[in-house]
Amino acid sequence: MNQSRRDTPSNVATPASAGVAEYLLASKRCDLLGLELLLGTGQLVAAISNLVHALQLERGASNMYLGSGGQRCAEVRQTQIDKARVAEQVFRASLAGVDIESHCNAGASRLFNRIAGALHGLDELGQVRIDIDQLKPQPSSIIDGYGQLIQSLLAIVFETADSASDPDISRSLVAMFHLMQGKEFAGQERAVGSAGFAQGNFDQQFSRRLRHLIDNQERCFQIFFDFAESEALAQWQQTVSVHQVELERFRRIAFAAVADGVADRDLSDAWFACTSKRINAMKALEDTLELSLTALCQCKIKAARSDLTCHKVQIDQLAKARDTGAMAVFFSRDSVAGLNESAPHTYDTGCTGTQLGRSLFELVQSQALKLQAMSEELQQARAALEERKCVEKAKGMLMRCRDLSEDEAYRFLRKVAMAQNRRLADVAKDTLAMEDLFTAKS
Amino acid sequence: MNQSRRDTPSNVATPASAGVAEYLLASKRCDLLGLELLLGTGQLVAAISNLVHALQLERGASNMYLGSGGQRCAEVRQTQIDKARVAEQVFRASLAGVDIESHCNAGASRLFNRIAGALHGLDELGQVRIDIDQLKPQPSSIIDGYGQLIQSLLAIVFETADSASDPDISRSLVAMFHLMQGKEFAGQERAVGSAGFAQGNFDQQFSRRLRHLIDNQERCFQIFFDFAESEALAQWQQTVSVHQVELERFRRIAFAAVADGVADRDLSDAWFACTSKRINAMKALEDTLELSLTALCQCKIKAARSDLTCHKVQIDQLAKARDTGAMAVFFSRDSVAGLNESAPHTYDTGCTGTQLGRSLFELVQSQALKLQAMSEELQQARAALEERKCVEKAKGMLMRCRDLSEDEAYRFLRKVAMAQNRRLADVAKDTLAMEDLFTAKS
Repeated sequence: MNQSRRDTPSNVATPASAGVAEYLLASKRCDLLGLELLLGTGQLVAAISNLVHALQLERGASNMYLGSGGQRCAEVRQTQIDKARVAEQVFRASLAGVDIESHCNAGASRLFNRIAGALHGLDELGQVRIDIDQLKPQPSSIIDGYGQLIQSLLAIVFETADSASDPDISRSLVAMFHLMQGKEFAGQERAVGSAGFAQGNFDQQFSRRLRHLIDNQERCFQIFFDFAESEALAQWQQTVSVHQVELERFRRIAFAAVADGVADRDLSDAWFACTSKRINAMKALEDTLELSLTALCQCKIKAARSDLTCHKVQIDQLAKARDTGAMAVFFSRDSVAGLNESAPHTYDTGCTGTQLGRSLFELVQSQALKLQAMSEELQQARAALEERKCVEKAKGMLMRCRDLSEDEAYRFLRKVAMAQNRRLADVAKDTLAMEDLFTAKS
Repeated sequence: MNQSRRDTPSNVATPASAGVAEYLLASKRCDLLGLELLLGTGQLVAAISNLVHALQLERGASNMYLGSGGQRCAEVRQTQIDKARVAEQVFRASLAGVDIESHCNAGASRLFNRIAGALHGLDELGQVRIDIDQLKPQPSSIIDGYGQLIQSLLAIVFETADSASDPDISRSLVAMFHLMQGKEFAGQERAVGSAGFAQGNFDQQFSRRLRHLIDNQERCFQIFFDFAESEALAQWQQTVSVHQVELERFRRIAFAAVADGVADRDLSDAWFACTSKRINAMKALEDTLELSLTALCQCKIKAARSDLTCHKVQIDQLAKARDTGAMAVFFSRDSVAGLNESAPHTYDTGCTGTQLGRSLFELVQSQALKLQAMSEELQQARAALEERKCVEKAKGMLMRCRDLSEDEAYRFLRKVAMAQNRRLADVAKDTLAMEDLFTAKS
């Protein structure tokens, strides 16, 4: 019995090597599929960028309309509502690009949940608009309401960045999210300032809120700077930064008005114009980012497709070479795809004839190294998102356990960070670690 | 024009609320699909556990056979080869449970790549066996060769643990992986010791290798202790720990023999018997873990299914209530699924009639909280894997940049950790951060 087995060792090896090729190609196909799905989410992100912008303008106009008791901005507001409706339709249409059936991972689960949350907010918007028509809400509740809706849309972008499988695309989405989030804080600043100037009255709460919004903007833009490409940074310098001096002058006037207890009503329009120019420049930058994100996706898809084709060709050639008896070429036994390979930080997907001699196993190993390098780069991109989650969670915990407002919770964290000369994210992490203490005392 | 729009606000809200329900259910379906895929990988892990065990026994027998110049263990070896072949067939069959078409994420890409690597190793095994039949290889190269093959199989288990979407299952797989990895180090210790006693000679290199294997075992089992359930820990105490005293006595004799320069050949069988009893007890524990892993998957799938059904019912009821005009129930406007909710660490998937009054949005929000809590728990489970990757990567870097052996690289890290009284993973992290320094000097 033993002898008969030993006589046919090649029976064991031959059929199985098809398995190696099959799983190698499956691994490559996963990469390609992941990229194709990212192209769909890229279009979704573009639609969100437009919808958020339209909602921000609608919020501003609705705010003016309410603040003036329905006397001002009725026409402008209606135009913005029309634009927001169109943007909403495009957003809903772009959801079709997110294939609801072909996902099964935790990232997709979170993405779909965020989409459900945003759709719910949009469903409510019709009633909110009627309430505003009838001058029912307070301006501040409008700012909060639109803010929550916009936040639910940004949460979708956050999730696409967090679940992207390609590190370059993830970095690009991290930059995009933080630009959009910073722009939203800038939009809230515009709305709060507009309301304050229109009422001719700034109080301490206004001052705190303005400071909070400025701080948060700067934090977001800092991360945008860290992750954006040089072209985007150049555009920021040329189109957004140029409004900074005028904005700082208006901010100074606003803070000075808090001290005086009275604000110059006539500055309302000038404030709105100044902040709007800056915000519009951010929107134009978002459009640029979106174009380069789509181009990046398409470029990566092309590379992944050619990589897949190339591997299929190589595998066929190896199979043919094996059939003609040149066994020695296929297997190199000096290395194995364990957990302890070191990962090179560059990898090419080029397909040249000189690779003919590479063994099937070398293909497996090079894919392993590529995946490992990608996984490490992804982790770096996601670290920025992780820190954001941490700060938001620490704020939420303080709001719950200490009954603080969001502003107060943020100020607490910021005060500790400044006093200890530490990063906000690190203080947030420590604060969360002490959650039990906070809970026990309250 | 404005008036006509204002007259039909409900047109906007009604068709869209189907979108909320659709994406909420899609999110739930993702969870269920992820669990169903985990059930498939659970069977794969069981097959790997059996195959690795068979290969470990085959390695031990092949080692004896080679060490004795073909005089000993020929029959035992052939029996083990037969068993390993059966286990290999079961492993290949269990791959059918891993649906190669329905994945598109980075985790699946890594998993398929690991499977390709392991299949390649198995394809090579036929030739390795022939070489051993002909007494060609050195015993040490056999230990390395089987070790690499087993490592490539364990890498699959590692990947399933790292990409599992459920935190409890991920914890269970982390425990399983570290038990299997620790058992492999125990298996290598058995093989190294057997070879040494059989040759009647232990040298300094042997002593270093043994120490390395003992250290690595303890590190793995420590993580197993951290992640295993109490039943598994009790079984460890009752069936594995009981062999510890005898094993330590043998280890002491082995290390003493290094000092003497000569080992008692007669102890070879006793050493093999003692280490085997312990290793077999670990295998039995793996079987227990496997059973509870499968039960856990099935339980989670049942809960996810009933959760999905329950949500469908609730959504239908909400839709019916809406059709009868009870609009006020559906939407609560006091909260929104932004990024800053705090996550409760418990969540139930119970489905009771009292939940009828819950709004669609509350369902979306509770899913958001559940996903956030899951994501945080997952991160904790994966931290243990992350640390392992870090240590392996630091070793690889030192081996490459400083031309060290794996043992030497590990000893370097361990020495620094002990000198500074720090954790090995932290030293590894710092070592990697200094990679440029190492590269520049070499």
